[in-house]
Amino acid sequence: MERSVFYISDGTAITAEVLGHAVLSQFPVKATIFSLPFVETEGRARGVCQQINDIYEKTGVRPLVFYSIIAADVRQIINSSEGFCQDIVQALVGPLQNELGVDPMPVANRTHGLTESNLGKYDARIAAIDYTLAHDDGISLRNLDQAQVILLGVSRCGKTPTSLYLAMQFGVRAANYPFTADDMDNIQLPAALKPFQHKLFGLTINPERLAAIREERRENSRYASLRQCRMEVAEVEALYRKNQIHYLNSTNYSVEEISTKILDSFGMSRRLF
Amino acid sequence: MERSVFYISDGTAITAEVLGHAVLSQFPVKATIFSLPFVETEGRARGVCQQINDIYEKTGVRPLVFYSIIAADVRQIINSSEGFCQDIVQALVGPLQNELGVDPMPVANRTHGLTESNLGKYDARIAAIDYTLAHDDGISLRNLDQAQVILLGVSRCGKTPTSLYLAMQFGVRAANYPFTADDMDNIQLPAALKPFQHKLFGLTINPERLAAIREERRENSRYASLRQCRMEVAEVEALYRKNQIHYLNSTNYSVEEISTKILDSFGMSRRLF
Repeated sequence: MERSVFYISDGTAITAEVLGHAVLSQFPVKATIFSLPFVETEGRARGVCQQINDIYEKTGVRPLVFYSIIAADVRQIINSSEGFCQDIVQALVGPLQNELGVDPMPVANRTHGLTESNLGKYDARIAAIDYTLAHDDGISLRNLDQAQVILLGVSRCGKTPTSLYLAMQFGVRAANYPFTADDMDNIQLPAALKPFQHKLFGLTINPERLAAIREERRENSRYASLRQCRMEVAEVEALYRKNQIHYLNSTNYSVEEISTKILDSFGMSRRLF
Repeated sequence: MERSVFYISDGTAITAEVLGHAVLSQFPVKATIFSLPFVETEGRARGVCQQINDIYEKTGVRPLVFYSIIAADVRQIINSSEGFCQDIVQALVGPLQNELGVDPMPVANRTHGLTESNLGKYDARIAAIDYTLAHDDGISLRNLDQAQVILLGVSRCGKTPTSLYLAMQFGVRAANYPFTADDMDNIQLPAALKPFQHKLFGLTINPERLAAIREERRENSRYASLRQCRMEVAEVEALYRKNQIHYLNSTNYSVEEISTKILDSFGMSRRLF
């Protein structure tokens, strides 16, 4: 079943995308996606409306439209299109209005925006990204007291993307430290990390997947050989167990899932950006 | 008006957080947030239910609960709590079921998960992060033909967080190049960038905000002085105009907004991760 799907917003359209994707994943739909952010004016809305109608006319199949727009006149133009239109936020605003006993104040749709009230939090997020970059891949072992999480693992097991996601999405200062081939003969926890045992979290990965990832980097190398990958993974897992470091096999998880599991494991509360 | 707010999911709870936040932002609620991911078992659900009920009993105010859980038995436990419970996905599933004429197949709630069908896309995302890190801050001007976007700007105007967000959220390979104080006497587009004019995008920023950000880094430095910031900003803006490079003032925008505006400006379609 094929459908054109529109995500439309007066903001970034990220919320519409995320929710629309969650809803659509329950149906056997092959979607052609149109993400249309910053639909803020009647003029742009009319253009979008035309685009929706054109597809309907050409294909005979109604496009699905998930939207979130505050201004009533802009919203109505989208809603008047031939698409199957769903206001993603409004469905929940009504019931909440009853519960809270106050009217909604839809002043501006800036879920992912920068406002005076969240500027401090935003600066903290940028600072977390700076910190994480400066402490990626063991570049610096200084100021680890300022880290909130220190990830461990072999090369290419997902440390860097996970650290960056923790910083970007959750404002967490995440350092990471790699174990290399040279560490394997006598693997141990570096002295610089020992004082921060309570912040350590290990990543591991299936050797077969690791070998495939490394092969992309350095074809036919010892580094990418299954034998080497098996050995490194076995060594770091033994180290995690010996030092009672919580660890996770990243093979079947996205960075979102890995990051969430790490924060969950530390019982850390999350900040929303 | 103060309320405890629960975001509960059998996955990362990121969707529940994003949507709940969008809905709540329309009401004057001071929220105390509890994000509870991976609520997958009846046991954990009962614990969460108890937590909700305890808060209600203690405060006399019903917690707000935004949830997304596939397994009916787990969902019912949450729904049986004393909280004001809203299934964030279900509100849209019903209408869509009518439109599509097929039943939903809620097999697993992994909006932010890694599945066989999205593994290739996921690998491309990780590759984009790798590329972006390797081309951050002008580190490397090689392989710029592989960049999809090349950001320009003075130090601390938002190039790095924006590049990383483009890679992380949208799978875009984003290089970035800084103009430094030394470039200012005779500012021009580096020869290495000229062949890629169509990929260039400039960032600029209000000198006052730039000075404040730089002051955090190097107190009382020339680098952080308002005079220096004004001069650098004026020079790069003149360069953008002279070379007909699209540019954006990042001062009042989040990385989500800046990234979205950049893709929009290039007419690039977005990929969802």
